[in-house]
Amino acid sequence: MAGSTYGTIFKITTWGESHGKGIGVVIDGCPAGLTLCEDDIQLYLNRRKPGQSRYTTQRNEDDAVEILSGVFEGKTTGTPISLIVFNKDQRSRDYGDIASYYRPGHADYTFDTKYGFHDYRGGGRSSGRETIGRVAAGAIAAKILVQLGITFTTCTKSIGPIKAVSFDKDEIYNNPLYMPDAAAALQAQAYLEECMKKQDSSGGVIECIIEGIPVGIGDPVFEKLDANLAKAILSIGAVKGFEIGDGFAAAQANGSTNNDGFTMTDNGAITKSANHSGGVLGGMSDGSPVIFRAAIKPTPSIAAPQKTVHKSGENIDISIHGRHDPVIVPRAVVVVEAMAALTVLDALLLNMSAKLDSVCEFYRC
Amino acid sequence: MAGSTYGTIFKITTWGESHGKGIGVVIDGCPAGLTLCEDDIQLYLNRRKPGQSRYTTQRNEDDAVEILSGVFEGKTTGTPISLIVFNKDQRSRDYGDIASYYRPGHADYTFDTKYGFHDYRGGGRSSGRETIGRVAAGAIAAKILVQLGITFTTCTKSIGPIKAVSFDKDEIYNNPLYMPDAAAALQAQAYLEECMKKQDSSGGVIECIIEGIPVGIGDPVFEKLDANLAKAILSIGAVKGFEIGDGFAAAQANGSTNNDGFTMTDNGAITKSANHSGGVLGGMSDGSPVIFRAAIKPTPSIAAPQKTVHKSGENIDISIHGRHDPVIVPRAVVVVEAMAALTVLDALLLNMSAKLDSVCEFYRC
Amino acid sequence: MAGSTYGTIFKITTWGESHGKGIGVVIDGCPAGLTLCEDDIQLYLNRRKPGQSRYTTQRNEDDAVEILSGVFEGKTTGTPISLIVFNKDQRSRDYGDIASYYRPGHADYTFDTKYGFHDYRGGGRSSGRETIGRVAAGAIAAKILVQLGITFTTCTKSIGPIKAVSFDKDEIYNNPLYMPDAAAALQAQAYLEECMKKQDSSGGVIECIIEGIPVGIGDPVFEKLDANLAKAILSIGAVKGFEIGDGFAAAQANGSTNNDGFTMTDNGAITKSANHSGGVLGGMSDGSPVIFRAAIKPTPSIAAPQKTVHKSGENIDISIHGRHDPVIVPRAVVVVEAMAALTVLDALLLNMSAKLDSVCEFYRC
Amino acid sequence: MAGSTYGTIFKITTWGESHGKGIGVVIDGCPAGLTLCEDDIQLYLNRRKPGQSRYTTQRNEDDAVEILSGVFEGKTTGTPISLIVFNKDQRSRDYGDIASYYRPGHADYTFDTKYGFHDYRGGGRSSGRETIGRVAAGAIAAKILVQLGITFTTCTKSIGPIKAVSFDKDEIYNNPLYMPDAAAALQAQAYLEECMKKQDSSGGVIECIIEGIPVGIGDPVFEKLDANLAKAILSIGAVKGFEIGDGFAAAQANGSTNNDGFTMTDNGAITKSANHSGGVLGGMSDGSPVIFRAAIKPTPSIAAPQKTVHKSGENIDISIHGRHDPVIVPRAVVVVEAMAALTVLDALLLNMSAKLDSVCEFYRC
Repeated sequence: MAGSTYGTIFKITTWGESHGKGIGVVIDGCPAGLTLCEDDIQLYLNRRKPGQSRYTTQRNEDDAVEILSGVFEGKTTGTPISLIVFNKDQRSRDYGDIASYYRPGHADYTFDTKYGFHDYRGGGRSSGRETIGRVAAGAIAAKILVQLGITFTTCTKSIGPIKAVSFDKDEIYNNPLYMPDAAAALQAQAYLEECMKKQDSSGGVIECIIEGIPVGIGDPVFEKLDANLAKAILSIGAVKGFEIGDGFAAAQANGSTNNDGFTMTDNGAITKSANHSGGVLGGMSDGSPVIFRAAIKPTPSIAAPQKTVHKSGENIDISIHGRHDPVIVPRAVVVVEAMAALTVLDALLLNMSAKLDSVCEFYRC
Repeated sequence: MAGSTYGTIFKITTWGESHGKGIGVVIDGCPAGLTLCEDDIQLYLNRRKPGQSRYTTQRNEDDAVEILSGVFEGKTTGTPISLIVFNKDQRSRDYGDIASYYRPGHADYTFDTKYGFHDYRGGGRSSGRETIGRVAAGAIAAKILVQLGITFTTCTKSIGPIKAVSFDKDEIYNNPLYMPDAAAALQAQAYLEECMKKQDSSGGVIECIIEGIPVGIGDPVFEKLDANLAKAILSIGAVKGFEIGDGFAAAQANGSTNNDGFTMTDNGAITKSANHSGGVLGGMSDGSPVIFRAAIKPTPSIAAPQKTVHKSGENIDISIHGRHDPVIVPRAVVVVEAMAALTVLDALLLNMSAKLDSVCEFYRC
Repeated sequence: MAGSTYGTIFKITTWGESHGKGIGVVIDGCPAGLTLCEDDIQLYLNRRKPGQSRYTTQRNEDDAVEILSGVFEGKTTGTPISLIVFNKDQRSRDYGDIASYYRPGHADYTFDTKYGFHDYRGGGRSSGRETIGRVAAGAIAAKILVQLGITFTTCTKSIGPIKAVSFDKDEIYNNPLYMPDAAAALQAQAYLEECMKKQDSSGGVIECIIEGIPVGIGDPVFEKLDANLAKAILSIGAVKGFEIGDGFAAAQANGSTNNDGFTMTDNGAITKSANHSGGVLGGMSDGSPVIFRAAIKPTPSIAAPQKTVHKSGENIDISIHGRHDPVIVPRAVVVVEAMAALTVLDALLLNMSAKLDSVCEFYRC
Repeated sequence: MAGSTYGTIFKITTWGESHGKGIGVVIDGCPAGLTLCEDDIQLYLNRRKPGQSRYTTQRNEDDAVEILSGVFEGKTTGTPISLIVFNKDQRSRDYGDIASYYRPGHADYTFDTKYGFHDYRGGGRSSGRETIGRVAAGAIAAKILVQLGITFTTCTKSIGPIKAVSFDKDEIYNNPLYMPDAAAALQAQAYLEECMKKQDSSGGVIECIIEGIPVGIGDPVFEKLDANLAKAILSIGAVKGFEIGDGFAAAQANGSTNNDGFTMTDNGAITKSANHSGGVLGGMSDGSPVIFRAAIKPTPSIAAPQKTVHKSGENIDISIHGRHDPVIVPRAVVVVEAMAALTVLDALLLNMSAKLDSVCEFYRC
């Protein structure tokens, strides 16, 4: 079935394999009149670019995006925006081995069983390069959200067992791991050096804080804002968990401490005196920042020896060489942010018809 | 926007408020020929019925389901199955207060802001009674899945700080909390007694294990099986977190331990030697049991005093009386199972056209 | 697959069989704040009620609608509106025969082949009674549209070979056939008397004129307003054709006569000097009235003898007795209007996010 | 809103403007294992290529398609197939005028009003070149359908007032108008010569016959096969009407003649003794050929003088020069066929889960 489309009004469709001709995305339903050029998108793509530190793959990927449609005289026209990134780094000599066995932690086996075979070159469609389309589309969503006063702060909350304990927003871009805590970032780098020595990899946790969402965004029952965020985030390869607000800690709490009391601000607005909910009540934004976390598993491609099966049916020992990220968390930060931006924007556009009064006012009746 | 429909092929639409005339669901896309009667559905509804122990609300809700359409001579016909549960327990004297202020941890404020007002009787649409439709539909999905060899084991993994440490499947139905560990169940009951004395409530964690799913169910990129499970589970009110397999623990792990090696079984099948993945690789089922957990927040309605705002704009102190569950986890177990069943069945039906060979064989060419 | 849901934002799901317990519809995504009571809906249902003239079935169907959810204190709440019409007239003695053979012009054979069997009582799901849900939902859509200044004039354009040649809006409700031409209505009645004598039935054409739609409603490419109207109308059982504006006559025309020139009105607005297009250009409303026609086939149930096959595999002769409409066109008028109302309203709600400026203004940025 | 995606399981998303960088389509949900190369698609694109006769535009458009993803080692992989046709013929000198006024019969005015402005170069998104994506995707659908024994015969039924009266399948490709009647084709060519002399254009009717569809394809109520065909066909720019089987003629008929009697074939199968229904009963295929017709309006771009308005608000006289088709019917034949192929294939894939027995058999239980 068709699984590469996401969104209802602001709808994206991604395509492309790691080592095919290119990777792309079509964004349909983007409101007309947004000033948009390649640089707006490139800025986001550069945040997921490899080779920016010792802790990401040393592959050389330019990932220069090109706008093929939907923009005229510098503005979006309301018609589909087609974006493409041509693939450049295709080391074809690497493939032979990979085609013959199932890599642990990868989707080779499930792809082969579902479809009968798969494009094994660099992971094909299940490669991390698939996220290029998401990030490119998310850049456009985020640009619109900024105009609506909605901003994102996304960072690495932990790497393996090393957790950020302080939160300094400015620090996030000061270290290669995007951690908001300089001391933790140093510890985490030391931890990663150890992993790399052991030819091993590490997981981590990403946190995303969304500020400025008006109250009431998201729809009750099945289209709750947090439910859609959960799907968006779990749809990123390597994500194994999602929690909003206090998340799993709330399961250990009592109602008296977990409930956020409402209170009046000095200028007569309603606010909450705490934010255990993570900015969502009944599936709708409640005016507090929306805060969620994603658990990222360790990179499955490791050079350390592993046991698996050959397609011929033999048990074999393998060790996966190549230029793999010892941790994908830092590069996944922008992917998480992109998926959140897409989800929030779509919910905002869908919310416009919630009240009959708004509809009547819109059509000036 | 329309948020009360779930699923693509096996599609359900729920409706109804806590204290309206009734609660219902329309199931469309159910394959024809399934033997179905009210008892099949009632069995599941009874698992979420209140009043079964000291730890659930003492409200008297019969919740007898009636099939209105879609079944003829004892079998589903392929046309929409409409189910209704008429509301009986409508204590109208309780409403006055609730209409005038925003209950902490509830959706009163977000509903009012989004729609201008809301049906405040018993929580209206955001009441836990909304899940009746989900459970009724899930019962039908589960009945089909059993015929496909797919079964569910769902239990309470923890209540507040008390965790099940052993796993005895038979124990689950032996204690009122549906815990798989008799000792933990006793401790958890003692813990809940304490909460109740303090007029407080507790959260908990639910675990669901799905066995028998063939390999390759779920679709890459945005329709991953785990992404759809995450949405399904987070769409249940009170759920604050979702994790699959090792989940958040995987974020602290290394690739060498987190990867599940493949190995050949004695009769020549491929299997995994561990199941850190929770039965999903690349968003598709990998042949191991699918295992996920949901974090449930404490019941927000507590008799202990709380601070909030009156709709007139004053800060007030409230205490919510009435017949509320001190913990909703035991009653939510079947809701989690129902949402999982709906998700897995829809993915199975969508998977039928993955290979051209299967399509050709189906149409005998 | 699930075929009983229609619409994207204003989404309806119908259910029910002719002789089951009832017929119903769930309307999800209705904007909150609409004043609504059963009478608003009953008004529309009464227009499709049988027994209003000699030319419709003499069955006694009350078809009293009940609102089960989604309305509180007289207004829609934004949550699903569940409507039900309980079935009353269930002459069970009629069924025996019908179950054993395939009625020409009916869906018995296709239902049986697709699903293995079907609910044959009164046509089951393929009965004309299925349209009750459409009309009930359409009544709500139409009530909103009136508030947006959008109105419908729907009438019978022809019965068999008898065509309305003049157009008098007031005449439509003066004759039992809903024709806008009194003379033609008399001729058509005479024609129908003849058909009835021959135990035969007649088809006809329905025309719908929608006034007041703002310019730009509908979406280019696959979600064109006229494309969605075509689907909506063809989804009504018995409809065999759809045309917008000049329709099939346009296929015989030249560009010079078929093009509608634009011209300025005295008060400086843009208008068209003709309306061959039927109010749609490039799939979007162009400011002129939207005009379309639907071709309705003759009622397939006739008492005159017909040839068909028995389920045992024999060729047989049958003659279908019972209380059938000699022509369904007059009763289908309101069904066509209802489907058009649903389609136009959904397109209006979807259009609200077409321009970034509108989105920004909506969220006051 | 997003209007450029079509289909549920076999889902296509088109993008691109007439004079932008290119035109493309992403096909998602294509079953894996189909042998596919560019030539399979080019064959269909060549049927819509201009310049093949005096009666189509003399623009030189190569329209060479390139496969960017979704095919590996010559077979579809089940992942999205991205196709692109780069634009070559971009005569930029033509634009100046067109940007300043609204062309009658075109979507300039509706686009401008909906979105605030539009890409006016060569018609932008509302150009006939938008159909390249449809035809390319349709070629893939048609290739699958052939393997299922389903074939299409699509031809020009009339040009202006000239109708094909005989039907010789082999003749269709013998004349530049794709008419199945050699004599009518000659008359139609003479008629077009006259139109061209008058700087005028002509409409026409296209007929499509689909053979080999199994019984029961399409879904009752809103997803009827004919309803979806109607939408698919009306979504093609310039189509103003759709009819299935006898269509508008059925509206003039009686039940006794319009009903198709069922009868047993010599080898014990059920068949119909006539096909007034056009192969669809109750929205499901009935085993007879599916036959429908589309009314195509005359090309709106004509050199003959026309009245319209300048964007400044003045009434003006214009005459549109350039290389326009005097009739688009012959080039639209393959577009109609492509949309029908997409619709039928999607319905076939959705039908696979109609019966529980089939689902059980598929999963070998």
